[in-house]
Amino acid sequence: MLKTNRERLQNTIDLFSQFGATENNGVTRLSLSPEDILARNKFKEICEQLGMTVTVDDMGTMYATLPSNSDNLPIVIGSHLDSVIKGGRFDGVLGVLTALEAVQTIIDEELELNHPITIVNFTNEEGARFEPSLMASGVLSGKFDKEKMLASTDRKGVTFEQALKESGYEGDVANRLTEAHAYLELHIEQGPVLEHYKKEIGVVEGVLGMVCYDITLTGESNHAGTTPISMRKDSMFAAMQIISILQNKLKQLPEDLVYTIGRINAYPNIHTVIPSNVTFSLESRHQDPTVIQQVEQIIFDLPKEIENCELSYQKLWSRDTVYFAPEVVHAVAASTDELGYSRHHMFSGAGHDAQFIAGYIPSTMIFVPSAKGYSHREDEFTSYEECSKGADVLVNAILKVAESSVSPVKSASVK
Amino acid sequence: MLKTNRERLQNTIDLFSQFGATENNGVTRLSLSPEDILARNKFKEICEQLGMTVTVDDMGTMYATLPSNSDNLPIVIGSHLDSVIKGGRFDGVLGVLTALEAVQTIIDEELELNHPITIVNFTNEEGARFEPSLMASGVLSGKFDKEKMLASTDRKGVTFEQALKESGYEGDVANRLTEAHAYLELHIEQGPVLEHYKKEIGVVEGVLGMVCYDITLTGESNHAGTTPISMRKDSMFAAMQIISILQNKLKQLPEDLVYTIGRINAYPNIHTVIPSNVTFSLESRHQDPTVIQQVEQIIFDLPKEIENCELSYQKLWSRDTVYFAPEVVHAVAASTDELGYSRHHMFSGAGHDAQFIAGYIPSTMIFVPSAKGYSHREDEFTSYEECSKGADVLVNAILKVAESSVSPVKSASVK
Repeated sequence: MLKTNRERLQNTIDLFSQFGATENNGVTRLSLSPEDILARNKFKEICEQLGMTVTVDDMGTMYATLPSNSDNLPIVIGSHLDSVIKGGRFDGVLGVLTALEAVQTIIDEELELNHPITIVNFTNEEGARFEPSLMASGVLSGKFDKEKMLASTDRKGVTFEQALKESGYEGDVANRLTEAHAYLELHIEQGPVLEHYKKEIGVVEGVLGMVCYDITLTGESNHAGTTPISMRKDSMFAAMQIISILQNKLKQLPEDLVYTIGRINAYPNIHTVIPSNVTFSLESRHQDPTVIQQVEQIIFDLPKEIENCELSYQKLWSRDTVYFAPEVVHAVAASTDELGYSRHHMFSGAGHDAQFIAGYIPSTMIFVPSAKGYSHREDEFTSYEECSKGADVLVNAILKVAESSVSPVKSASVK
Repeated sequence: MLKTNRERLQNTIDLFSQFGATENNGVTRLSLSPEDILARNKFKEICEQLGMTVTVDDMGTMYATLPSNSDNLPIVIGSHLDSVIKGGRFDGVLGVLTALEAVQTIIDEELELNHPITIVNFTNEEGARFEPSLMASGVLSGKFDKEKMLASTDRKGVTFEQALKESGYEGDVANRLTEAHAYLELHIEQGPVLEHYKKEIGVVEGVLGMVCYDITLTGESNHAGTTPISMRKDSMFAAMQIISILQNKLKQLPEDLVYTIGRINAYPNIHTVIPSNVTFSLESRHQDPTVIQQVEQIIFDLPKEIENCELSYQKLWSRDTVYFAPEVVHAVAASTDELGYSRHHMFSGAGHDAQFIAGYIPSTMIFVPSAKGYSHREDEFTSYEECSKGADVLVNAILKVAESSVSPVKSASVK
C-alpha cells in the first residue's frame, strides 16, 4: 500500500496555519481576505512547482491539475482554504493539504494514472464573511443564483463581487468544474463519533437530511409584579411546556436522530416583564426521510393553544439526504482496510461542498477524528498521525477509483 | 362625603395627556425632557393660580403647598409626571392630577384644614431616561447616593445633572421633603386584580418584597448536526429541566406568589449550534418574607449538575416587603366605604416612590383599576369615572388623616 510522507504533511499543515494565525493556535481566514489570499498564493506556488496547471473559475474557485497521458476525466480532490472567525487549523484546509500530499506522493512514486488529478479549493465554503455557506459549489451545482451570490455583502458592506475582483482570483466561467470521474473530499469529522468509537477513518456514505423550524408562543406582556399567576398569558412557561412535549416525543424516534434548540428569543426579555412572545428554533437531522417526516409530524401535532398562549410555527428550511456514490465510498473503505486502519461508516451531519458536487459527480468524503468533536473553534484538533492516515487513505482511494469505472450520477439529481 | 369634580378632573387629564402625546393615544414624557418641562410648567401655573407656593429641591422634585393656619406638618399627596417611552396617559400623572383635584375641591368647599397640603411631583420615577427608577425618592430616603444619580446618563450621553440644570428645575436641598404628617399616593394598579374582582378602589397595605436571581446552565457548544444526542452537554435542555423543576416546586407555594422568567439568553444562540450556556432570570414577589425564603431555598436546592451541564446562580437583588402605615391605610378604607365604593385590600407588586417615602413618613397608596392590567403601554386605560372615584377617596382620606394623629414611622426603618 502506498503511504504518504507524514513529516512533509506536518510541515505543510504548520505552514498554512500561519495564514491568519490567531493568538490561541487557531486561524481567522475569511474568504478572499488578505489571509486567504496569502494561503491561495502559497497553494498556487506549490502546485506549480509540482508541475500542475492552476486555473480559476468565475467564482474564484481554484483548480490545480496534474495532467495524465489519457483523455479521461479528472479525479477531483480537495476542499476549502477559508475558515470561520477564530476557527481551527484543520477544518477545510486539511482536505486541500492532504490532496497536495497525495499528489506529491504519486509524483514521488512516479505513478502514471489514467486520469488527471485536480486539486480544488472551493471559494467561501464557510459563508463566514459572505452568506451563504457552500457558495461556490452551490453556484457550480446550480443550487444558488450567481448574481445573488455576487451581491452578498460582508459586515463592512463589501460585496462578494468587489472582494473577488480585488483579490485577483476572479477567473473564467469556462474553467468551472462541470464533469469529473469522481470527487473525494477529506475533512475533519467535526463531531465526537470517531473519537468515541476509537476509529481512525470515517467512511462517509452521505450527508444527513435536515429540517429547521421556528416555533413561537404568543401570550401577553404584563408586569411581573402585579399580575397574578392565574391571570397570565406567560409565553415563557408555554414555551417550556412545548419543549418538554417535543423532547419526550423526539426521544422515542431512532436514537441516531439529532435535534437541537440552538436559538431562543423572548420578548421583551426583561426580568420584570412577563414575555409576550418566545420563539425558538428546532433543527433536526437524520438520514432517513421518513424519520424527518415524523419530526415534522410531531411539530404539526403540537397543541395550538397552551397556558393561554397561541402556538405557531414556520419552516425555515430543509434539505434532503444526499447519498454518496457507492463505488467511491467502497474505494475509501477498501483502502482503509488494506492499510490496516480502523473505519466507521457514517453520514455527515454537517454540510460540505461534496453534498452539492455529489449531484453531478460521483463523490464521497473521508473523515478524520476531531478531538472532543470540536470544530469552528481555535482548539479544534486532529493529530498529525490522524491527518497522515487520512492522506494515506485518500491516495490509495484515488488509485482504486482511477482503475474503476464509476457509474455516472444521474443528471436528474442536478437541480 | 366630599365629592370631587369629575368634569374638571377629566379636563385636567386631557390637558396633561397632550404633553408628549403619541400617535396611539399614549404619552412619551421622559424625565426632564421638553415634554416633561411643559407638564411641569403647567402644573406650577395651575398650583400658583390656586394660591399654592411652589418650591423645588436639589433633585428637581416639585412641591406645591396649600398653606394652613397651623404649624402642623403638611399632608403630602402626589406622584410623578414622567412616563416611559410610549407609556400611557395615567401612570404617575394621575396621582398628581387627582391631588390637584383634591386641593381644588378643598378650596371650593372653603375647608380649613389643620395641616398644609403639599402636592409632590417626584423627578424621574420611571428611570426610563436615567437609571435607576425611583431616583429622586431614593435620594430623599437615603437609599441612593446623590452623586451617582447626578452622573447617570441617558442614551445620548447627557447626564442627569446636565439635564437638571438645563431644565430650570434644579432647586435647593433645603426644600427636600424631610418630614410630613402623612403621604398618600394615588396610582393606577398596573395589574388586573381590581378589574378581575370588579372593585373600584385598591387599598394598598404595602409593597411586595422580591428577589431576583440569574440561573445559568453551562454545557458545551458543539455542532448540531455532528454530535449525537448521547454525547452532548446541551445547556438548553438542561435549562428546560431546571425550569420544569422550578415551576413544579413554586406551584406548591401560596397561590398569591408571583414568579416570572422574563429574560433568557442562550449562547451562541445559533440554530445549528448546541448552546454552551443558557442564563435565565427568576424573579419572585410575595408579601411574606418566609415565602420569599422558600423561593430562595428552592433555588439553593436545585441540582448542581443536570444533563451533563453545571448549574450556577447569582442573586441580582432583593427588596424587603414595605408595610404602609395602618392609620393611613385605614383612612383610605374608611373613606372608600363611606363613599359607597367597593374596595380590595392588596399589596403593590410594582415599585413606587411611596415605598421609599414610607421609610420615614406614614404613607399609603390608593389604586384605581387598570383595564386588562396594562401599563407602560399606550393603551393603558382607566375610565374618567374610575379616576374620579379615586380622587373622591383621596380627598376624604386627606380629611380623615388631617384629623387623626398618625404614629410616626420609626426612624430605624430609614436605611
